[in-house]
Amino acid sequence: IAKRLEKFKTTIFTQMSQLAIKHGAINLGQGFPNFDGPEFVKEAAIQAIKEGKNQYARGFGVPDLNSSIAARFKKDTGLEVDPEKEVTVTSGCTEAIAATMLGLINPGDEVILFAPFYDSYEATLSMAGAKVKAITLRPPDFSVPLNELKSAVSKDTRAILINTPHNPTGKMFSREELEFIATLCKENDVLAFTDEVYDKLAFEAEHISLASLPGMYERTVTMNSLGKTFSLTGWKIGWAIAPPHLTWGVRQAHAFLTFATSTPMQFAASVALRAPESYYEELKRDYNVKKDILVDGLKAAGFIVYPSSGTYFVMVDHTPFGFENDIAFCEYLIKEVGVVAIPTSVFYLNPEEGKNLVRFTFCKDEGTLRMAVGRMKERL
Amino acid sequence: IAKRLEKFKTTIFTQMSQLAIKHGAINLGQGFPNFDGPEFVKEAAIQAIKEGKNQYARGFGVPDLNSSIAARFKKDTGLEVDPEKEVTVTSGCTEAIAATMLGLINPGDEVILFAPFYDSYEATLSMAGAKVKAITLRPPDFSVPLNELKSAVSKDTRAILINTPHNPTGKMFSREELEFIATLCKENDVLAFTDEVYDKLAFEAEHISLASLPGMYERTVTMNSLGKTFSLTGWKIGWAIAPPHLTWGVRQAHAFLTFATSTPMQFAASVALRAPESYYEELKRDYNVKKDILVDGLKAAGFIVYPSSGTYFVMVDHTPFGFENDIAFCEYLIKEVGVVAIPTSVFYLNPEEGKNLVRFTFCKDEGTLRMAVGRMKERL
Ligand SMILES: CSCCC(=O)C(=O)O
Ligand SMILES: CSCCC(=O)C(=O)O
Repeated sequence: IAKRLEKFKTTIFTQMSQLAIKHGAINLGQGFPNFDGPEFVKEAAIQAIKEGKNQYARGFGVPDLNSSIAARFKKDTGLEVDPEKEVTVTSGCTEAIAATMLGLINPGDEVILFAPFYDSYEATLSMAGAKVKAITLRPPDFSVPLNELKSAVSKDTRAILINTPHNPTGKMFSREELEFIATLCKENDVLAFTDEVYDKLAFEAEHISLASLPGMYERTVTMNSLGKTFSLTGWKIGWAIAPPHLTWGVRQAHAFLTFATSTPMQFAASVALRAPESYYEELKRDYNVKKDILVDGLKAAGFIVYPSSGTYFVMVDHTPFGFENDIAFCEYLIKEVGVVAIPTSVFYLNPEEGKNLVRFTFCKDEGTLRMAVGRMKERL
Repeated sequence: IAKRLEKFKTTIFTQMSQLAIKHGAINLGQGFPNFDGPEFVKEAAIQAIKEGKNQYARGFGVPDLNSSIAARFKKDTGLEVDPEKEVTVTSGCTEAIAATMLGLINPGDEVILFAPFYDSYEATLSMAGAKVKAITLRPPDFSVPLNELKSAVSKDTRAILINTPHNPTGKMFSREELEFIATLCKENDVLAFTDEVYDKLAFEAEHISLASLPGMYERTVTMNSLGKTFSLTGWKIGWAIAPPHLTWGVRQAHAFLTFATSTPMQFAASVALRAPESYYEELKRDYNVKKDILVDGLKAAGFIVYPSSGTYFVMVDHTPFGFENDIAFCEYLIKEVGVVAIPTSVFYLNPEEGKNLVRFTFCKDEGTLRMAVGRMKERL
C-alpha cells in the first residue's frame, strides 16, 4: 500500500456493517435507510434505462441534472450559478470530496477540519499531500471554539472544511459561527469546502449554506448528494458547486478519478431534485418521529444523549455503562445487546478525544428503531 | 487547480463529443455505442431497483458481483481468486486505475507506460506523484521495442502498465511480448498493471491476461469493466483483481475516492457476467461486420489504415490528405466532412509522435458507419 494510505484502516462503516451482518445485530451504525427511496425517483431511473440512456454521460454531468442542481441551489440559497460552468456531477459526495482535495490542494498546503470528521476528509487530504489541522468540537453543544480556530489559521492554510448539518454530532453551524469562518476565509485568502449532504435533514435550526454569506461564493466549493435526502444512498450521485476557477480543478480531478457518473441514475436524480417542497416537508416529518423514538429510547436506556439539530445521527456518551472506551462499548453492544453503533474515536486526529462518544442513526423504520431501543433498555 | 493537474487539458473525449454535438457531426470519436445494451442486463437493473436494492453496497462490491467477476476470471484465465479478498468493484475501470495508482504508487516511484496511452494513466500517476516513462509503440504493427523497454527499467521502477487489447491502436500484446514483460517484472521485482477492458473484443488474436503467465498473478493488478463488453458504457461498473496484499491498497484508495459503486447496477452487472459464451460470440460477430465497413471505407477514402486486432478502434495515418497535424485534420473532418475522430497526439508524452495518427471507432450501428464512410469518401 502506498504511504499516503498506510495509517488508515478499513473504513469504520464497512467494519461495522460487516459485524452487523455477522452477528445478526440491528444496524444503527452506517447511515443508510432500511426503507426504500420514493417511487417517482425509482420510476425515473427505470424509464431512463428503458429509453436507452445507458452510454457515457458528459463528464461533468448530463445537462438536465446540472440544471436541476443549479435550480435547487438557487431555491435554497438565492445564488444563481451557471449549470454548465459551476456544477460538477460526481459519483457520490465522497467523490466530490476526493476531487476537491486532489483538484485544488497542493502538497504542503494546510487544511483545517473540525473533529469529529467523516473519515474520507483526512484520507483524501493525505492523498493530496496536505497537512491537516483539526479543531475539536466538544459536547454538549459541539460549538466552534472561535479563538482556537482563529489561531489555527497560518500562512499555509489553503482551506477550511466544514460539514453542516454535521456528521457524526448532529450539530448545525450557527450563523455566527459561519460568519466567523467567512471572515477568517476572506481576511486570510482561504478557501471554504462545505459538505452539506444533510441540508434537508435540518430539524432544530435553519440550514445555512456557507456559500450564501457575502463574498463567500467565489471562494467556496459546496458539496451535496442525492442519497440522504432521497433515501437512495446506493445510487452514488453527488455534486460540487463552485465558481468556474475552482470548478476547473474539481472537474479535472473528477475526469481522471471516474470520468463520468452513471447515466440513467443521473436522469433519475434530475427528476428527484425537481421534487416539490412538500416532499422535503414529509421527509422531515417522518424523520422527526423516528428521531423521537431513538432519542427517548437512548435516554431511557441510560445514555447521556447530546442534542442533535440535523442529520439522521445522534451522539451519546456511553460512560454510564462503565466501558473503557467507545470500541469496547460498541463490541459489547453488538455481541451482547444486538445493536450496532459507530464508535467515534476514528473521527479524531487524537482518538482519545472520542473515547466516550458513540453515534447512532435513526434512518430506520419505526419498528426497527423500537426493537433496537427495546434491546438496549433491556440488556444494557 | 492543484499543480498535479496543471498540465492536463479537458479530456479529449469530452472535447470531441462536445464538438460532435455542436457541429451535428457523426461521432466516431469517443468509444460508446450508439445502440443499447442487452435487454436481459437492463431488465436485471430494473428488477434490482424495484426490489429495493438501492442502499449503500458493501464498499468493495456486492458479494454476488464479486463472485461473478471471480467466476468469469477463472473461465478466462484458469486462475482461481477469492472474490472476498482479491476482487474490488469500482466506478468504472477509470476508478480502478485511479485507485491502483493512488493505492500502490508512492511519490518518486517510476511507472512505465506504452504510448499512445489512455489519458487517465498519466493524470492519475501525476496525482500519485510518480515519474512516468513512456515506451512508444510505432506503426504499422505497434510492437513493443523490447530492448528499449528493458533499458527503461531502473531501480525506481515500481510498475509496468499495459493495456491489451490496446486503446487507441487496436494492438494486442503477443505472448512473446507478455513473456518478455513478465520476465522483466519478476527479475526486477516490478508490479504489472493491466487494463483489459477490451478483452472480449479480440478479433485477430487470442487475448492473453498478463496475470495468467507463470509467477505473475502475485504481482499483477488486472482491471476490467462491464461497459465495453455489454454496450453499457454509462453504467460505470469496473473492477480490479489482485492478490490480497495489492488489493488492500486498491481497496483503501477506492474507499476514500468513491466508497462504493451504484448498488442496483452492480446486481445487473453480476447477471451480465454470467452470460453464456454465445453472448460474446455474437458480440464479436456483430463487431466484425462493423469493423469491415469502417476499415474498407477508410481505405477507400484514402487513409493509410493500420491493422487492428482488438478493441473497437482503428488507427489511421491521415498524411495522404496533406494536413499539418492530427488536430488540424480532425478539425477539418468535423467541420467540413461531418465526422468526428480522435486526434492521438494527446496520448503521447511527446505530442509530435502522434501527429500523423487519428483514431476511429466502429462501435456504431451499420447505417451510421456507412454514412460516415460515405461522407469521407465524398468529401475528403
Ligand atoms: C460511506 S458511509 C457515508 C456516511 C454515512 O452514511 C455515515 O456516516 O454512516
Ligand atoms: C472515458 S472515454 C473511455 C475510453 C473510451 O471510450 C475511448 O477511448 O473513447
